[in-house]
Order: sequence, then C-alpha cells, then structure tokens
Amino acid sequence: MENTDKQPIDFFKVIHERRSVRHYKPEWSIPREEIREMLVEATSAPSSSNLQPWRFLVIDNQELKEKLLPIARNQKQVVEASAIIAVLGDLEGYLKSEQIYQQSVDRGFMTEEVKQTLVNNITKAYASRDHEIMKRVVLVDGGLVSMQLMLVAKAKGYDTVPMGGYDEAQFKEAFEIPQRYLPIMLIALGKASEPGHPTTRLPVDEITFWNQISNRDDASLQNATK
Amino acid sequence: MENTDKQPIDFFKVIHERRSVRHYKPEWSIPREEIREMLVEATSAPSSSNLQPWRFLVIDNQELKEKLLPIARNQKQVVEASAIIAVLGDLEGYLKSEQIYQQSVDRGFMTEEVKQTLVNNITKAYASRDHEIMKRVVLVDGGLVSMQLMLVAKAKGYDTVPMGGYDEAQFKEAFEIPQRYLPIMLIALGKASEPGHPTTRLPVDEITFWNQISNRDDASLQNATK
Repeated sequence: MENTDKQPIDFFKVIHERRSVRHYKPEWSIPREEIREMLVEATSAPSSSNLQPWRFLVIDNQELKEKLLPIARNQKQVVEASAIIAVLGDLEGYLKSEQIYQQSVDRGFMTEEVKQTLVNNITKAYASRDHEIMKRVVLVDGGLVSMQLMLVAKAKGYDTVPMGGYDEAQFKEAFEIPQRYLPIMLIALGKASEPGHPTTRLPVDEITFWNQISNRDDASLQNATK
Repeated sequence: MENTDKQPIDFFKVIHERRSVRHYKPEWSIPREEIREMLVEATSAPSSSNLQPWRFLVIDNQELKEKLLPIARNQKQVVEASAIIAVLGDLEGYLKSEQIYQQSVDRGFMTEEVKQTLVNNITKAYASRDHEIMKRVVLVDGGLVSMQLMLVAKAKGYDTVPMGGYDEAQFKEAFEIPQRYLPIMLIALGKASEPGHPTTRLPVDEITFWNQISNRDDASLQNATK
C-alpha cells in the first residue's frame, strides 16, 4: 500500500487494513520530513471552533525511546517503532484563536469583524482557571486527529498502534511536559515486521439506536427500515 | 466521489475534500441500511482495550430533528441534514469486555485463559463508582470513531459537520439519555447543498516538537533532519 503518488490508495482498503501493530522493524528509520508530512495531512481533521489544540511530541531518538520503555509498561514497540508520537492536548490552545482566525482573514475566508466576534466568544467560553472545558475538548479533538494520523500512516505504507497504557505522571516528568499539555495517547509509528492481531467488533445493531435510546428493541435492524 | 464499488475512492482525496458542511438538501433521505453500513465501517476504529465504548443515537425523524433544533443553537443543518448522529460514550462500556473478548475466543484469536486475565484486569481498572477513568477513555475513543465516521461518510458521497455547540443538559433531557451515556458530539450527515467554508490550519512546525518540548526552537524544521 505504498503511496507512489501515481495511483490512488483506496480509502476502504486503508480503513480495513489498519490494525494495531505491535512488532516493528527496529532498523527502519522514517525521515522527519515524512513524519512532518503525515502530521500535515492528519491535522486537516476538524476541531472544536477550529482551535486545533493538538500538539505532537515526536520521539525518534533511540535513547529517549529506551527511557520511555519502562514508563510504557515495557511494550516492545516503544523501542522498535521508528517513532513514538505523543499526542498532547494544549489546555491553553484557545489562546491561538486570534492567530487562527487572522489566517482566515488574511486568506479572505472571513471578515475582520467576524474574526473579532469569534475570538471574543472563544476567549469567554474557554478561559477558565481550571481548564475543565478545554480538557474535554482536547480529549475529543485529540481523538479526531489521532485517528486521521493513524489512517494517513497506513495510507503511506506504515503501521501504528495507539497506546493508553503508560504511566502519565512518569511520562510528564521524564519528558518535562508542561502542565498546559494533557497527554491524549502515544502512537507508535513504524514499518511492521509482523501483522497486527485480528480483533472483533460488537454487532452494530447492539450499539446503535434509532431516534430513541430507551427502547432497546428499537436498536434492532428489524425496525431499521423507514 | 460516489462509491460505485467499481473504482477505488482515493484516500487522500477523501481527507482533503472532507470539510464541515452546514447546508444540506433537506429532501434528501439516507436509507437506514446505508447509515448502518457507515457505522459498521466507522467502528473498525481502535479503542482502549478494544472496549468500543461508543454508542450511536441516530436521529432521522423530522419531528425529533425539530425538537433538537433549539437545543443545538438553531443551527439549520440540524433539520436539513438527513440524520443527526449523536455519538455517545458508554461509561459502563467496560461491562461488555466479557462479550467482546469471548467473540475473540470464538473466532480463535485468543485463548480462554488470556480472555479471563484481560477481563479481570479491565474490570479492575475501569470499575470505579464515579466513572472518572472511563470518562476520559470514552472522550478519546469517541473522537477516534467520529473521525472515521466522517471520513467514511465522505467516501460514500455524503458530508458531515461535527457539532459541539448544543446544550448538553437539554439534549439529555429531551432525548432521555441515561446517565451512563456521555454525549461526545453531534454529527450532521447528509447531502450537501453548498460546499463547506475553507478553513486554515496552524503551521505544523508550530505544533510539533522533536524529542523535547521545552525548547521551542527544536520545533522548527531547521532541525528537522536527522
């Protein structure tokens, strides 16, 4: 599934073939320019008020990967993958609203007046001392961008595994993560040496409700015709 | 970009062309079987411990869309889109771990013994009275599945817009959402009548750090060569 830029990479093939991969070729290195390009593609994801509160700490230094290993429960992919991308949520991300919307004004997508109104509203909505509102926003937006990043990686011939199993406090200390950044997940990125394990999914009718949630029967496909 | 099942839908075309669309053909109806199929595709997304704590309340009844309209700040897409999909996080989703891993045992992906260990660990980790750990998990996992859902919709010729701007308390009351479900976002899904507005993104080098976060200069592309 290498992107040769000559033939299309089938969307459904990408989502069907993406699996959590835990075994990587340790000698495989991904040039930073290529990782950067994947991040550019990933960040076309949408976000609340387009604040894009995601930040990326790309760990591609082998010593630092070794340092992360015990913090991430000694999961071997931490040292074998080409890079570990820590997806962080910037709890002060709303402070960039002026810059973000100014870009839109500069490109003619928005008037100065609309920008001012939006910036004022965002500042009012998000600026709270304990960042409680932003916390929820960065977790969801962090999920959005992480998904697109994992798919982009797959489309470019790489594999990934999202990792939530690590000691957050130790991670923040070891990598000197300022308090304003909330770790969302670690994503191992590399060239697979073994395919990911197949997994199963809950039947869709068990997790889908039509128009009302109280009546479980309404979730069955028997009623799923209009 | 209709999926004719005959030619591939280019992955990068899908991610480049997905935009938040706020104007839909109000007369356009999407068959439930097609929405269901999109949810099947979306839920191949990964989740923490594969718990898949996402649930979907699909609102395709016009009266209910009208009921939702004032709750969602009178955003017209609520009544004009074919369906509003409320993505919910099940704070008791860990209770399905036995079922999920039994599926894997049944398909030969896992031994009974491994299943038991996993189920015990998950139950220990997630079963807390206030659901604090699950809250964070469902927000991130809800983001993952929402992103894949929006991309799948685009690949199938539809458009979407994620909405966080609604009164959550009113929504939960009006649609009788049990406390165990945390609303993640509303996604309007339909046939666009007008394209989405273009938006801008922060320069990737401003949001990317290489190996350490403390030194802003290290985020610049000047150093982005190994």
